[in-house]
Amino acid sequence: MQEKLNELKMRLAEIADLSHASAVLSWDQQTYMPPGGAAARGQQMSTLRRIAHEKFTDDAIGKLLEDLSSYADSLPYDSDDASLIRVTKRDYEKSRKVPASLVAEIAQASAQAFQSWQKAKPANQFADFAPFLQKNLDLRKRVADCLGWTDRIYDPLLDQFEPEMTTAQVEAMFAGVRKEIVPLGHAIAEKANAVDDKFLHQKFEDAKQWALGVEAVKLMGYSFERGRQDRAPHPFTTTFARDDVRITTRVLPKFFNAAFFATMHEGGHALYNLGTPPEFERTPLAGGASLGVHESQSRMWENLIGRSRAFWKFYMPHAKKVFPRQLQGVGAEKMYRAVNRVQPSLIRVEADEVTYNLHIMLRFEMENALLEDRVAVNDLPDAWNAKMREYLGVTPPNDTQGVLQDIHWSYGTFGYFPTYALGNFLAAQLMEKIRADIPDLDARIERGDLKTLLEWLRAHIHVHGRKFTMNELAHKITGESLQTRSFVAYLKNKFGEIYGV
Amino acid sequence: MQEKLNELKMRLAEIADLSHASAVLSWDQQTYMPPGGAAARGQQMSTLRRIAHEKFTDDAIGKLLEDLSSYADSLPYDSDDASLIRVTKRDYEKSRKVPASLVAEIAQASAQAFQSWQKAKPANQFADFAPFLQKNLDLRKRVADCLGWTDRIYDPLLDQFEPEMTTAQVEAMFAGVRKEIVPLGHAIAEKANAVDDKFLHQKFEDAKQWALGVEAVKLMGYSFERGRQDRAPHPFTTTFARDDVRITTRVLPKFFNAAFFATMHEGGHALYNLGTPPEFERTPLAGGASLGVHESQSRMWENLIGRSRAFWKFYMPHAKKVFPRQLQGVGAEKMYRAVNRVQPSLIRVEADEVTYNLHIMLRFEMENALLEDRVAVNDLPDAWNAKMREYLGVTPPNDTQGVLQDIHWSYGTFGYFPTYALGNFLAAQLMEKIRADIPDLDARIERGDLKTLLEWLRAHIHVHGRKFTMNELAHKITGESLQTRSFVAYLKNKFGEIYGV
Repeated sequence: MQEKLNELKMRLAEIADLSHASAVLSWDQQTYMPPGGAAARGQQMSTLRRIAHEKFTDDAIGKLLEDLSSYADSLPYDSDDASLIRVTKRDYEKSRKVPASLVAEIAQASAQAFQSWQKAKPANQFADFAPFLQKNLDLRKRVADCLGWTDRIYDPLLDQFEPEMTTAQVEAMFAGVRKEIVPLGHAIAEKANAVDDKFLHQKFEDAKQWALGVEAVKLMGYSFERGRQDRAPHPFTTTFARDDVRITTRVLPKFFNAAFFATMHEGGHALYNLGTPPEFERTPLAGGASLGVHESQSRMWENLIGRSRAFWKFYMPHAKKVFPRQLQGVGAEKMYRAVNRVQPSLIRVEADEVTYNLHIMLRFEMENALLEDRVAVNDLPDAWNAKMREYLGVTPPNDTQGVLQDIHWSYGTFGYFPTYALGNFLAAQLMEKIRADIPDLDARIERGDLKTLLEWLRAHIHVHGRKFTMNELAHKITGESLQTRSFVAYLKNKFGEIYGV
Repeated sequence: MQEKLNELKMRLAEIADLSHASAVLSWDQQTYMPPGGAAARGQQMSTLRRIAHEKFTDDAIGKLLEDLSSYADSLPYDSDDASLIRVTKRDYEKSRKVPASLVAEIAQASAQAFQSWQKAKPANQFADFAPFLQKNLDLRKRVADCLGWTDRIYDPLLDQFEPEMTTAQVEAMFAGVRKEIVPLGHAIAEKANAVDDKFLHQKFEDAKQWALGVEAVKLMGYSFERGRQDRAPHPFTTTFARDDVRITTRVLPKFFNAAFFATMHEGGHALYNLGTPPEFERTPLAGGASLGVHESQSRMWENLIGRSRAFWKFYMPHAKKVFPRQLQGVGAEKMYRAVNRVQPSLIRVEADEVTYNLHIMLRFEMENALLEDRVAVNDLPDAWNAKMREYLGVTPPNDTQGVLQDIHWSYGTFGYFPTYALGNFLAAQLMEKIRADIPDLDARIERGDLKTLLEWLRAHIHVHGRKFTMNELAHKITGESLQTRSFVAYLKNKFGEIYGV
């Protein structure tokens, strides 16, 4: 049996190498590649992905998994070997269901759709993009059918990003949260002047913004021996190996928040993957449990820590040393309030903690409506704008700042958006347990000790890699499945206090 | 037949993608990778290379080549299709002769030898490195035997880097050149004070050195739309696609020449690959004919242009604008003489044009002596030092600056060194033809027109990609095979005038 397990691991290691190589090519594409490299790079990445897909869906892997299934059954569910076999089998079965020809068709269609979106967005020409979006949608419907579904066509698509989560579960959670935060948002809107963040909108020198962000992620425990930060138009984190997890950011010359909080956010993603146990390297157990759990880490560091009063009590002197002129007369409390300013806005990635999830709910509803043919692609802008008015009270002046703002649909990615909100919910749920385990957490943060938190995250979350689903993990750590109670309480408490509502 | 050719091209394109992906990983390893990434990166590159090797040595490729051989025979020798089939067949037959197990053994041994060399060099401990060098040598003997040889064991190893060149041919050329340049070197040594380059050894600001080098390669015709320059400890050029050819350099804070001429050198390599016809992309015809022909391009730009009087007549005002203090009172003529200072030295990569090839000849002789068991590994330092005295009149004070200086043998690379000298010879031979075709070349260079030269190189050399061997190319362009007459005349003329000898 050990021999078959070794044979399986050897094959999986080869596939992991291919996938990490792909990640290097993609990182270069988004950071340093000159324009001339674009066409060839697309081919190279597609070749690597195709070879990895061929090797992973090889009959031999299916046979090994079958031969190993009774061995896996004989082991505890959470043991390394049982988990490796279980998770690999889950991935394998999904990969086998989608024929290579459909994968190739999707790759081609999404490349074309992405090109169209890149032009349509700045030109505010949704109609130009619509046929490509329709094609992406049709292809994803076929993927959903290949993967199989009974209740909702959205289920298998969501499952690709958040394994075993269902559309019905998400709908229920979203409805519950929406009921609470729409009124909270309205109450805050009436006291909009209670928070002033004008001083955050002035010139902050590029190199200094960079340095302050680097200082923050180092404080979080990110090591530049095992990673690095580069510039990219859209910040992201990428993993080339357990000991080489890189982050990227972009600096806005006249707005403090953009680079600083993006750096903390990506730092949170990176710390998760850097916490992978070494023995998971080059196996499907390496990395994070799911996209939602990953977001729980990034948004915990960005919001629950980076936008906390305790953090700014410690960090304000550092920020003032770097920006003495810009932050003159700004104390920790003023900074805390400013970085937490709430304002219904048009753009998801700029949204505050209160309104952010409304942007997600809107997209989740649109995706379901499109997939279930309740909204036609051509009617999407109207549907989008109506929902923006309903949830956020704002109307996009154009599609550039409306339905065309996100990159995801141009890639043909449906089912991804909810994971951002699920991550927010999980972060708050985990934080209640963290505060129970580390009662003096705030006092520690106030003296710059973020290490205790990182150690907790490593011991309770990172150590498991991809072994568990989001609900399994939530249950294991907090004794219950993912819930939204903690998140709603967190928002009401924090923003109620800031705005006096 | 067209169908088989397409099938062959499709398979070769996949292999080209894998090899370019490998190049990206290697570039990152040498430029940006954090220390933590090292171990995994080695595995990833080895996986990519193994898959590429498996795919290239697949029986199906042999069958296609066989089926296409009569088609190739029916075409002109220099046609694209005939050349593709011929060059692929040459590569294929070599690859098939070396068993995968030996390739794997070499990869492992050279990784270990490299690690040993990295420690042994600074510590001046040749004895620690000796057993690894012995292992590398034994493995290369086995490679030579696999590839087959009749006259000299060195032949098949040289052939890997310089196809169809023989050891006997190289020996004859080296003997002829040595006879001329050893006395030239002695005559120059007696007039060592005739050239003063002290002003090149002072502080030159890093960013300004960088900018001046960038300006020079742009003048050469290198486009940052189709490439970029990054920092690396050892300068190199790497190709990710026809339209993405990157260079690297390193800046020495207190010596002008190092970065500037390395940048022009790598720029010369890059222009060669950027000149590949688009239709060769993703085939074995892409890139340069051989390492020797590649060096003819890099060293032509570095030495025949970069160290020419005409170039400095044009470029001196630019250099003085960037370094007004350091170059105060230095005119074009003084600069020309300074960058051409001749001095027998210990280190190959720092050698001038006159003594450089003596360093190469020494290494070529050592490699042959080792492979033919005329010198034992343990006796190598003594043999090296004796030869240094004989050729250059200097004795290394230690092995760090002697036999341990180069990286090549630690990788197990034997047969590579001669290509540097062959490139020098070819550059001079080509330059005679270029001057015949462009009689006003110097006048053009003096007014900053390097474009005419680049166009000539593109039309006569770059356009052929890997179609021809070095001798075929030399013959096609100059009417005779590679010869050393032009090179010797060039040296005697240039340095005779500078030193009055």
